Amino acid sequence: MKKLKRSERLVDMTQYLLSEPHTLIPLTTFAERYSAAKSSISEDLAIIKDVFENEGLGELQTLAGAAGGVRYIPKLRRDHALAFAEELCRQLQQSDRILPGGYLYMSDLLGQPSLMNEAGKIIATAFSDREIDVVMTVETKGIPLAYATAAQLNLPVVLVRRDHQVTEGSAVSINYVSGSHKSIHTMSLSRRALKERSRVLIVDDFMKAGGTIQGMVDLLGEFNAEVAGVGVLVESGAVENEERLLQDYISLARLSDVDAKTKMITVNPGNYFEK
Amino acid sequence: MKKLKRSERLVDMTQYLLSEPHTLIPLTTFAERYSAAKSSISEDLAIIKDVFENEGLGELQTLAGAAGGVRYIPKLRRDHALAFAEELCRQLQQSDRILPGGYLYMSDLLGQPSLMNEAGKIIATAFSDREIDVVMTVETKGIPLAYATAAQLNLPVVLVRRDHQVTEGSAVSINYVSGSHKSIHTMSLSRRALKERSRVLIVDDFMKAGGTIQGMVDLLGEFNAEVAGVGVLVESGAVENEERLLQDYISLARLSDVDAKTKMITVNPGNYFEK
Repeated sequence: MKKLKRSERLVDMTQYLLSEPHTLIPLTTFAERYSAAKSSISEDLAIIKDVFENEGLGELQTLAGAAGGVRYIPKLRRDHALAFAEELCRQLQQSDRILPGGYLYMSDLLGQPSLMNEAGKIIATAFSDREIDVVMTVETKGIPLAYATAAQLNLPVVLVRRDHQVTEGSAVSINYVSGSHKSIHTMSLSRRALKERSRVLIVDDFMKAGGTIQGMVDLLGEFNAEVAGVGVLVESGAVENEERLLQDYISLARLSDVDAKTKMITVNPGNYFEK
Repeated sequence: MKKLKRSERLVDMTQYLLSEPHTLIPLTTFAERYSAAKSSISEDLAIIKDVFENEGLGELQTLAGAAGGVRYIPKLRRDHALAFAEELCRQLQQSDRILPGGYLYMSDLLGQPSLMNEAGKIIATAFSDREIDVVMTVETKGIPLAYATAAQLNLPVVLVRRDHQVTEGSAVSINYVSGSHKSIHTMSLSRRALKERSRVLIVDDFMKAGGTIQGMVDLLGEFNAEVAGVGVLVESGAVENEERLLQDYISLARLSDVDAKTKMITVNPGNYFEK
């Protein structure tokens, strides 16, 4: 790379850090990349750190010493996160979302990459201090949110299938009870997808009684893996507390009522904003 | 926002532009955001443009006049794209990927958000000049690539389901013939997911004879929508040309042989690199 001026370095370092979240980058990487002294790089990083923190983009952690460097931890500031959740609630309350059976049409929202990325940033922020090896979801609609979360945390995604697929090799299958219908389903995970003793963040788009997520928790047991956390975009609050299989999770929005007669949908920011 | 120095402005403008690809941002947005003169903003943009272009991050298009502004078009430079494809091929050739029936285990690669983002950038680069309204894929494994592509193009994603789901409302279903097995399957798309006359970029993880993608093309016909392009991560070249249902597509890698006996897999960069 040709020798850059400070102004040019700042542009390139900013894009570099944003593209490598949760990754320790030694100062020498930058010093060599720009043929610059480490002291200059440190000054650059101080400027970037200030802007990132003032703008609520996240933290720039600097680690001193021979094994030191800099690490960008994306974090969405609470006020930004709440504004996002309130806008999400507003959109979820549009009465034409009501489908037969009291289901809510959400595919238009789940189909917006920028919206999924913001939601993923919030879940990543909530779990940024946990030790996590992998993000898990079950097909289909939670996939974009799981990838958005994993991208922010610099983690791989493990995808649980509803059926055993030929392209997954040998797999472990379990049955689970979907809480809202009390009906029995199967989910399956490729043997080679998950290492033993992995710490797993479970992400999904929607949770009612929590049967599907409990299924994933049970599946983790088969792999001697651990739940590091659970994050969902929308939880249905229209569930008696004793019916909820799972207590420890975060939600960005809570659907408390769908009235098919009056076409009224009630959605409020989720439990993440109560803590 | 407090008044920033040029160095701070450059950091913030860089992250702003990166987070809003394919979006026209009026210079006044920046001028107001930083309480700075438009002439200063223009100088800042010239610096960012130089770095982005030298680093192969994409173009910064500046449009003059009252309706003018700046637009970031992410583009992955050809040499970077080819290096990525060669590394992908190397990983796909690992012999332990061979599954019964000659299938290839790819879920570990598809589960890496950073890899999907790079691949999505290449497909977005290939189609950056086309007029496209929406990216379409069919569940399940193409979803992360479709979202990665759509994020770069600032477009929504429309997801075709294998079965008609209660959460999708009324839907249009079609049957299609999966070329490699000549077996008949169903795919279905929510009526409200796609506007008439939309221009659609189809993205998938794998294409053999092309039956699944042809199914999506047929489904578009039901919505009076048009194919704007087709991009796949891996195509199987082990198909006679006359058997290939689809001729106009780009692939990032081409799988030409899987020999279960010798455990040899042959993968080369796809047709995108031949053009």
